[in-house]
Amino acid sequence: MPRDLAPLMPAQAMDLAAELGANGPEADPNPRVGAVLLDAHGRFIGGGHHRGAGTSHAEIDALHRARSGDHETRGATAYITLEPCAHTGRTGPCADALFEAGVAHVVYAAPDPNPVAGGGARYLTQAGVLTELRHHDAAAALTRRWRRAMALGRPWVTWKTASTLDGRIAAADGTSRWITSALARADVHDLRSRCGAVITSTGTALADDPHFTVRDGGRPEGELADRQPLRVVLGERALPADAHLLDDAAPTLVLRSRDARAALARLHEEGVRRVLLECGPTMAAAFLRQGLVDEVVAYIAPALLGAGGSLIGDLGITAMDDVLRLHTRDVTRLGPDVRLTLEIPRRQ
Amino acid sequence: MPRDLAPLMPAQAMDLAAELGANGPEADPNPRVGAVLLDAHGRFIGGGHHRGAGTSHAEIDALHRARSGDHETRGATAYITLEPCAHTGRTGPCADALFEAGVAHVVYAAPDPNPVAGGGARYLTQAGVLTELRHHDAAAALTRRWRRAMALGRPWVTWKTASTLDGRIAAADGTSRWITSALARADVHDLRSRCGAVITSTGTALADDPHFTVRDGGRPEGELADRQPLRVVLGERALPADAHLLDDAAPTLVLRSRDARAALARLHEEGVRRVLLECGPTMAAAFLRQGLVDEVVAYIAPALLGAGGSLIGDLGITAMDDVLRLHTRDVTRLGPDVRLTLEIPRRQ
Repeated sequence: MPRDLAPLMPAQAMDLAAELGANGPEADPNPRVGAVLLDAHGRFIGGGHHRGAGTSHAEIDALHRARSGDHETRGATAYITLEPCAHTGRTGPCADALFEAGVAHVVYAAPDPNPVAGGGARYLTQAGVLTELRHHDAAAALTRRWRRAMALGRPWVTWKTASTLDGRIAAADGTSRWITSALARADVHDLRSRCGAVITSTGTALADDPHFTVRDGGRPEGELADRQPLRVVLGERALPADAHLLDDAAPTLVLRSRDARAALARLHEEGVRRVLLECGPTMAAAFLRQGLVDEVVAYIAPALLGAGGSLIGDLGITAMDDVLRLHTRDVTRLGPDVRLTLEIPRRQ
Repeated sequence: MPRDLAPLMPAQAMDLAAELGANGPEADPNPRVGAVLLDAHGRFIGGGHHRGAGTSHAEIDALHRARSGDHETRGATAYITLEPCAHTGRTGPCADALFEAGVAHVVYAAPDPNPVAGGGARYLTQAGVLTELRHHDAAAALTRRWRRAMALGRPWVTWKTASTLDGRIAAADGTSRWITSALARADVHDLRSRCGAVITSTGTALADDPHFTVRDGGRPEGELADRQPLRVVLGERALPADAHLLDDAAPTLVLRSRDARAALARLHEEGVRRVLLECGPTMAAAFLRQGLVDEVVAYIAPALLGAGGSLIGDLGITAMDDVLRLHTRDVTRLGPDVRLTLEIPRRQ
């Protein structure tokens, strides 16, 4: 790494920390975090990132690399995308490690809302380290969904839809393959790979017999990815033994209940921080009505059906004044289709 | 115009012709056309464009400007976005004028399908002028809808929709204001200004009492634009005398019939080449089922209703295999909303 040739500006250091952090696994109990250490002259002496639960945190990784390069960490400034942790889990507390290494200044891009691990900034300040929360878009974006999940005590819920322009997810006779293009369907595999679990209903499982796996290139004949989301089935009906969701391509949790809140609480305990909801209009409406959807990723095909199933069931909305408005975060064209990434406004 | 300093390459000349042509009025019986004349050395000697029915055609305008600049037109090459006309309408035939001016070479970007005015290229070839159809995206795009209208013998029909993500155009209680943002609604005024007529149904007129006018900036309080589309009402019910569609803000044609084909034939005779369909799901479905829609401009708001009127009525489609697929031509974000420009594939 010839990064040590010229001093870095603070924003460049955090840019680099965000880039490093993005290398971490997204579908992990732990957040993606990157860290960069600069010496007192602003020269890069080490950078690191977190590689998933059970491995070193980003700060530790960066300190380790600085020491491997025989760099002095005393008096250094650390740029970290997330507030350093203050608790001993499977690894020691990072706040302590930074203090012990003599780091003089810690800049972080987002606070850690984790009730167990948070508080690292306060610990460092009390220990006499100059500690500063400085917003940085890319760095904060790395942990946005994770931080919300930790604050809520349940996974971030992304509801995925694939519909025609007229909001249909199936024709009048129930046929629904395929509404969107292969490109959009491959994108769904990518989306799934970013989630710790996929939740569906027994209704969808019985009607469509889906796989809900992640395959290379999103192609049905692609190799199964090493990491698969946990497949979770909500509902009281039994699935046939030969249902794809019960195969050994990925783990599956059959909950025999429709309790969305309980399901999310259980997934949270198991370290799932983001869930993809891939279900029919009734279960989607149930999640929405309970305020359990954070985001909608909507694939819209340039097609009309004029009849057939709608993408969402009754929401109890009867007048335009009560329409459920979402925030548009992204619009991306995928071949013939368009993907909208929308967020549900927070209820305070 | 200091364009005569350096020779232009053929593609540059047609780029310029397309740019000039784009200055013409879009909502006109005549197409937007631009023309550029280069002398034998490739130097610009004149450019022109058509300014609407009753004014000079682009070629005549360009010849006029070349002569005003004391340029020799003998031996010149003309780059024209559309095949020169061969008939005498309110102006003389352009093919003849080009021949008389001694133009040696005519390059045009799209053929004129007009059964009355077409044939200019053949006329010129027979008169010994080197004549060449050479495709150019921007030049051909200027007349794409117009050429299709002339080939069909009816206006190009653009159906405008404004719906929620779940394809609703109104809440369960019938309220529908407003689904889309002010930015999207202003864009509709811009779209209207590009059309010779707006077609609606008595149903929409009675339910919503719309204006269907074009106002500056698309704001309700904006000044009425000088040029307004003809407002056309299809259906058998009478409108109240104080209906906005019967005010004097724009002309209105009340047809007292639901015959879409007859309405379009009449508008074609009156020189309307593009129509905007702003109506409810029943009339839109009737137009679609008769193959009378060429394009859909769909404004989608990031909102969910879960119930209420759908954007399109029954299309007689019961299975996914028969879904009506459209071609995506453009996806544009407009503030919170997204605008899809889709085309109906041709039935051969």
